[in-house]
Amino acid sequence: MTDTKDRLIGASAELFRRQGYTGTGVKQIVEMASAPFASLYHFFPGGKTELGAETIRWSGTLYGQLVDAFFDPAPDVVSAIEAAFAGAADTLRDTDYADACPIATVALEVASTNDVLREATAEVFESWIVALAARFGGAGIPGPQAREVAIACLSLLEGAFILGRATRDAIHVEVAGAAASTIVRSALEQHRSG
Amino acid sequence: MTDTKDRLIGASAELFRRQGYTGTGVKQIVEMASAPFASLYHFFPGGKTELGAETIRWSGTLYGQLVDAFFDPAPDVVSAIEAAFAGAADTLRDTDYADACPIATVALEVASTNDVLREATAEVFESWIVALAARFGGAGIPGPQAREVAIACLSLLEGAFILGRATRDAIHVEVAGAAASTIVRSALEQHRSG
Repeated sequence: MTDTKDRLIGASAELFRRQGYTGTGVKQIVEMASAPFASLYHFFPGGKTELGAETIRWSGTLYGQLVDAFFDPAPDVVSAIEAAFAGAADTLRDTDYADACPIATVALEVASTNDVLREATAEVFESWIVALAARFGGAGIPGPQAREVAIACLSLLEGAFILGRATRDAIHVEVAGAAASTIVRSALEQHRSG
Repeated sequence: MTDTKDRLIGASAELFRRQGYTGTGVKQIVEMASAPFASLYHFFPGGKTELGAETIRWSGTLYGQLVDAFFDPAPDVVSAIEAAFAGAADTLRDTDYADACPIATVALEVASTNDVLREATAEVFESWIVALAARFGGAGIPGPQAREVAIACLSLLEGAFILGRATRDAIHVEVAGAAASTIVRSALEQHRSG
């Protein structure tokens, strides 16, 4: 039964990432998950909103692990951020410009219309900022500035994903990666020379 | 009659910006525009998709004029980009985190689902990149790099809008503005010293 719940969340995550929350019907979700219709309301009594919030948090945790995946093996934070953007550009191309941020589409759709889901997206973005800031802090950038560098890097990635998906050209993500590298280097140098 | 067409586009623009394309019904559009239902199909025989594409291009032209509005009076491109992000942060706060990019929500919704609308968003993003790159080029940054700086600035703004709307905190746009300023300064300095 937990398996069914996992499949419902996994199917929702894929559909939300590619076509957004509003454009995804519960019927489409249960079909993709090969789950009985009633199972959705069994596991998520609050219906699509509850499933949506849980999917956002699940995606947030899953993609948050990418921070470790890129920063753990990298020799330094500049290499890590460059590898992360290069990986994002590859994924965008490999998935025919469909797979980028798992929650950005939903975040924009619900920001002014559904506060339960908006809060879930806000929590996820904040968790990613905190994880990135910890990495930059660990590299010697003082706390408040490490957070700013994290916000700048995440903004660059999210914005470049929009441009890349719209134009079907991942060059935007690569260019944003070079800009992120400049921002991280600049913060490291400021601290070394200050 | 043209007045009715303008009202339909204006209403669509506001609804798309705040709640996206999928979540906006044609009934809601004609109601907000105080237009007869039939007028929508009179002016837009292709229905919601045709109205959507025209609204995206109209919003793109309107917001594209903001490039002139910020760069014309500014003493230099660094001041211009800083003023643009500060203005964007103010607008976000003043509109209760509703008004940010007029086409970003639609762009993410349609990227993998509606190629007519996707192309309209791609054209708009490209027009903004070209307008920004011309300003950076005019300040002495060589063409290819001017385009990269433009892509970085637009990515920062679009990404920070997502974070700002989701968290209801415009600080993300201000932080992204400081990063954009660093990117522009860095490109100017490279050219001066190179």
